[in-house]
Amino acid sequence: MPTINSIEELFNISREKLENQHGTININFANRNHVYTGNDVIGNCLQEWLPEWFRYIGANIQQTEQTQAFPDFTAYFNDLKYDVEIKAWHISRAPAFDIANFYSFLETTYESPNKLDANYIILGYEPAQDGFSQGFVVRRIFLKKIWQITGPSEKHKIKLQVKRNQPYAMRPCNFHTSPEKAFQNRDEFIQAVYEAYKLYPNEANTFTAEEWLERVQSYTGQ
Amino acid sequence: MPTINSIEELFNISREKLENQHGTININFANRNHVYTGNDVIGNCLQEWLPEWFRYIGANIQQTEQTQAFPDFTAYFNDLKYDVEIKAWHISRAPAFDIANFYSFLETTYESPNKLDANYIILGYEPAQDGFSQGFVVRRIFLKKIWQITGPSEKHKIKLQVKRNQPYAMRPCNFHTSPEKAFQNRDEFIQAVYEAYKLYPNEANTFTAEEWLERVQSYTGQ
Repeated sequence: MPTINSIEELFNISREKLENQHGTININFANRNHVYTGNDVIGNCLQEWLPEWFRYIGANIQQTEQTQAFPDFTAYFNDLKYDVEIKAWHISRAPAFDIANFYSFLETTYESPNKLDANYIILGYEPAQDGFSQGFVVRRIFLKKIWQITGPSEKHKIKLQVKRNQPYAMRPCNFHTSPEKAFQNRDEFIQAVYEAYKLYPNEANTFTAEEWLERVQSYTGQ
Repeated sequence: MPTINSIEELFNISREKLENQHGTININFANRNHVYTGNDVIGNCLQEWLPEWFRYIGANIQQTEQTQAFPDFTAYFNDLKYDVEIKAWHISRAPAFDIANFYSFLETTYESPNKLDANYIILGYEPAQDGFSQGFVVRRIFLKKIWQITGPSEKHKIKLQVKRNQPYAMRPCNFHTSPEKAFQNRDEFIQAVYEAYKLYPNEANTFTAEEWLERVQSYTGQ
């Protein structure tokens, strides 16, 4: 295996080796095997499989210690540190994975504005339900920044899950079929988050929308 | 294998053979295997494994055609038909699986009052996270009627998930640690459902709480 020097190389090798590959999930219990035929657990299982693959092909990637923290993984290439999130979804449907809790994301990026540049590695899989084969096929792999997978919704400057007038998760747009609906750049994304925070201020956060904006804008990116 | 003549026999054989047995979940993708180490998918996988086991030991059990229907399975023993639901949960935690959507349950039992007597086969598993072994162990298996796993909550006559003043799922009580908190019999359960329906009437249902009560009470059970 060649040494991997960047997240782009990690992504390119993975895409080359994994796209259109087949997989199965097996439950062995009381010494009896069953091949899983549902759809519900495929994404969850792939999200566990992929980091092990990255290590196998020689990447230095570690799980973040707090399990609920954003992002999930930290990778090092040539002494440079990269934040990495891994997601997977049923590619025939609209992507509906949680990108991050809105207020936690604000807090994390206020503390560490560089986390705005976290890398999303996203698997689009398809259950194999042709009656002949079992399992799933990974159709596409994406490497994206957060502003490339989020966009405005009908109601909000940024697509948000809102319950009882409280924002919860940030949700992806249909970045794979309609990339033009995502934000066009980092600044558009930052402005949308700022507007959403003004609309839903949070008493528990110790900073205002203006303070958040100033902080993340003062960071110029990697 | 001996012929299985009743749901109790099915349960007893399963309990004898499966309690304290070990299991693992394997994800094989792109010809590389990973043993699953999380907790999230164990219950879902066990719920798929168990019906295949039932068939293996000789039970005649079929999945109901509508996937969202209650109950999930129909079993036949000596030409008698049994409704069967299969659930699994992390036994160190409070059981939080959905028993049934409240309004769907009302509708189903209004149409077919015999479904009140559906049999819940419930697996209590424990992830094996001792650093030595991987996977999970099924600690206990239960065979219960719905009134044995539900009970009153602080707010309601029956434990219900309520969002925006609308009831959603019926949720189990801690039937494994505090069976005395469950309803004591079928009638107590029916009364509690009746009271909850009066509290949250549903315009979409074509019958009133009184009509539901009369209908299910006129059915005397198996």
